[in-house]
Amino acid sequence: MSKTNPGRFFEDYRIGDVIRHATPRTIAEGERALYHALYPARHALHSSDEFAVDCGLDGSPMDDLIVFHTVFGRTVPDISLNAVANLGYAEGRWLAPVWPGDTLRAESEVIGLKENSNGKSGVVWVRTRGINQMDLPVLEYVRWVMVRKADPDAPAPDPVVPDLARTVDPHQLIVPEGLDFSNYDDQLAGEPYRCGDYAVGEVIDHVDAVTIEEAEHMLATRLWQNTAKVHFDATFREDGRRLIYGGHVISMARALSFNGLANAQIMVALNGGAHANPCFAGDTIRAWSEVLEKAETEVPGIAAIRLRLVAHKGAAGDRALLGTDGKYAPHVLLDLDYWALIPA
Amino acid sequence: MSKTNPGRFFEDYRIGDVIRHATPRTIAEGERALYHALYPARHALHSSDEFAVDCGLDGSPMDDLIVFHTVFGRTVPDISLNAVANLGYAEGRWLAPVWPGDTLRAESEVIGLKENSNGKSGVVWVRTRGINQMDLPVLEYVRWVMVRKADPDAPAPDPVVPDLARTVDPHQLIVPEGLDFSNYDDQLAGEPYRCGDYAVGEVIDHVDAVTIEEAEHMLATRLWQNTAKVHFDATFREDGRRLIYGGHVISMARALSFNGLANAQIMVALNGGAHANPCFAGDTIRAWSEVLEKAETEVPGIAAIRLRLVAHKGAAGDRALLGTDGKYAPHVLLDLDYWALIPA
Amino acid sequence: MSKTNPGRFFEDYRIGDVIRHATPRTIAEGERALYHALYPARHALHSSDEFAVDCGLDGSPMDDLIVFHTVFGRTVPDISLNAVANLGYAEGRWLAPVWPGDTLRAESEVIGLKENSNGKSGVVWVRTRGINQMDLPVLEYVRWVMVRKADPDAPAPDPVVPDLARTVDPHQLIVPEGLDFSNYDDQLAGEPYRCGDYAVGEVIDHVDAVTIEEAEHMLATRLWQNTAKVHFDATFREDGRRLIYGGHVISMARALSFNGLANAQIMVALNGGAHANPCFAGDTIRAWSEVLEKAETEVPGIAAIRLRLVAHKGAAGDRALLGTDGKYAPHVLLDLDYWALIPA
Repeated sequence: MSKTNPGRFFEDYRIGDVIRHATPRTIAEGERALYHALYPARHALHSSDEFAVDCGLDGSPMDDLIVFHTVFGRTVPDISLNAVANLGYAEGRWLAPVWPGDTLRAESEVIGLKENSNGKSGVVWVRTRGINQMDLPVLEYVRWVMVRKADPDAPAPDPVVPDLARTVDPHQLIVPEGLDFSNYDDQLAGEPYRCGDYAVGEVIDHVDAVTIEEAEHMLATRLWQNTAKVHFDATFREDGRRLIYGGHVISMARALSFNGLANAQIMVALNGGAHANPCFAGDTIRAWSEVLEKAETEVPGIAAIRLRLVAHKGAAGDRALLGTDGKYAPHVLLDLDYWALIPA
Repeated sequence: MSKTNPGRFFEDYRIGDVIRHATPRTIAEGERALYHALYPARHALHSSDEFAVDCGLDGSPMDDLIVFHTVFGRTVPDISLNAVANLGYAEGRWLAPVWPGDTLRAESEVIGLKENSNGKSGVVWVRTRGINQMDLPVLEYVRWVMVRKADPDAPAPDPVVPDLARTVDPHQLIVPEGLDFSNYDDQLAGEPYRCGDYAVGEVIDHVDAVTIEEAEHMLATRLWQNTAKVHFDATFREDGRRLIYGGHVISMARALSFNGLANAQIMVALNGGAHANPCFAGDTIRAWSEVLEKAETEVPGIAAIRLRLVAHKGAAGDRALLGTDGKYAPHVLLDLDYWALIPA
Repeated sequence: MSKTNPGRFFEDYRIGDVIRHATPRTIAEGERALYHALYPARHALHSSDEFAVDCGLDGSPMDDLIVFHTVFGRTVPDISLNAVANLGYAEGRWLAPVWPGDTLRAESEVIGLKENSNGKSGVVWVRTRGINQMDLPVLEYVRWVMVRKADPDAPAPDPVVPDLARTVDPHQLIVPEGLDFSNYDDQLAGEPYRCGDYAVGEVIDHVDAVTIEEAEHMLATRLWQNTAKVHFDATFREDGRRLIYGGHVISMARALSFNGLANAQIMVALNGGAHANPCFAGDTIRAWSEVLEKAETEVPGIAAIRLRLVAHKGAAGDRALLGTDGKYAPHVLLDLDYWALIPA
């Protein structure tokens, strides 16, 4: 029998299974520096220990998306090696900061299963948790993927479709312990706009753009130990193109969003997201955001802002999201819905 | 009103203005490792904590150009976002070592303004300071750029052209506290040549060459949070080419200069510099140096050597600097004038 | 006289010479992070401080190949700058773990010399040692290279061909102090297969593949301060192609071998190796391993497994090693023979 990992197929999942993912990972200053080399990240709280200390923290925590990618990367060999499509995210919350030197591992619980009518594949829902070296959860999110069946004759499981929140209730957002924006320095942060300066419905075009290279997305994707073949092996797809890890686009868009949303310092919830179209090397990525909602948190002076973050490879200023067919326009890469913390 | 940063235009600057730049940055072992991955840097003092300790320091300080690029990167959104050209540097001095874990911020004072005769742009001179978390200056330099006017009808300011030193007086060079070359190990440093072995006028061809890739210059430039579009967005220029950050060429040339100047360990002053021609991915960079001057420092055994460092994309051994028209030859990329510390 | 390093030629070596190589290097978390970005490395002991602590160590040691490349890189200016070919390795042993923050230097002793019959070049054998800041050896290996003569009339030395062990005797393998696999967690490691589950002669196809980019191999090779021109200068070879450092292929293959050999955690000996054919950007690298031998170590529960690791740029599943002419098939890049530690 082969000793290599064939990945799991649809019929290998059972409701209630808890999968302990392999390859715990210590992340530290090196990953932080690489993140700054890979993305034009400029949010001050993740750039400067001093700025973070002035905001009540012990130092600059690892970027929220470093945590997301690291946890996600652990799940790939068990969840998405045979996935046909990454369908969605929901109920994502960052639960505690991750500090340089922390070690993360991940677990996923199977919470939904539904075979497709073609009998060849099905949808698997998992709730994934990232856990640090003190066994404390640092991140959780639900993700669903379409997975192939190895044996088309394997019986269909009873369908279980989890009832997922459309967005994370702002009362459930976790403000990092000690976070305090009362001495917040707008000048060092880069922009004067606080939560009150944004209107629901307001759209911000983030102006900047980055053309993507093969070497860069592979460096990033490997850094998170996401080893799905399609990102690395130019002989894998018939067209000879490597598909870029969707998370690379998330990080690029979030970093671009600094310009106009510099004070949306910390991602605290992932309400949903779609990788609308594939991204390839050579694409030039732009981003825009829409303010969807604003809320208070339990901490005075710290507000939450709910943002739609769209990445696309169209012309500057193109804000079309859907085509006439109601589907995502072909230039749209990402449609993400998240909550961030921002000075009130 | 748009919340994104449009950058400053010529008419937005006033003599005496002090601009506190955004995005303080903690730099540590990760940035050091990346610097070694991006450039063929081999100066022992920046490679080995042990070598640095044997030279009287507490450990290996961050490479002088990491400090320069980090400070420079902070200034881009306020100084050069609408710059047409980066015209020059003067009176640059490194004032104190930066250690892994230090946090840098930057401030620039407007010290010169002169509108061009065409009325569409003008020259802005700023004196920039990099400052660490103890509020101590670590680097200062003057830089001047040509900046567009947003409103051609804005009145011209009274012209103020600062009187800048042609070179930094060697008496003003700062030797890092504790630096001591009395136990200097030539073998570990890589070459036996000390200050006395170099003659003023001597030219050193640095022999090695590096062909530049898009991914590499973008990783480098982002690492310093320099987010000028022209370096990242292949759709920005009409020719579809990304312009390489001039500092990438400075670092490449300085690293190549190890071969023949291995003992010129520490950059202490930047007398001047011109980015003679643009550099693009695919160019193969070579470098040569000319010894311009030698001087004593206040510390016995530590000399200063003033070097012209030229980077070019011509054939090996091509040392032409100027064309018949008196302008830089088209293959010349960089003409830098700096002081370095070297065992006497 | 030129101050740049011309490298040594065949006639510059004498039996018994000990060459202290230049450029000591401190390696830390940054190099660890970069290693994960450059290679799909997933062995848990090098990924997680917690996993390493559970295996009796103080933390996660630097990857064994980081140590190899760092030591190798130091030797290039003295050993292989004028090498025509890198002919082989033998008697390689890792002697002690290297921890983040350690500083490595290297020394090589000339142990063999044999002029070629053409009188234009000769073979040089050196035994190289990597040494940490406490003057303790961390790695040793024999390497032999073919080096050009500068002066064809230089007299041939008496030939000395060292008698090298075909493989390192398993009794000479050094198990890192404190290493203990009695609490070994198969799930976190990623696979259940221990030494007893592998049969001598068993072949494992590692399934995954990576297409190589110029930027990546140059980042890697510079990180180890290996500055051989042929890796960086696209104008150096007549065909305009940069030759990829053989060690880049070693690290890629070793990382790919995780899939099927996840528990072969630590490289402890390098018995031999051949860079069978040159590797260029654009090549897609695959790997397979063959179990050559198994042995006990002095520590209960820790076994040694001897593996042939082959990297190639052929089709998936192609396991041809030799052509009909008895030479390496043209798609084979690497044929490496090493010992690894694995739970018994």
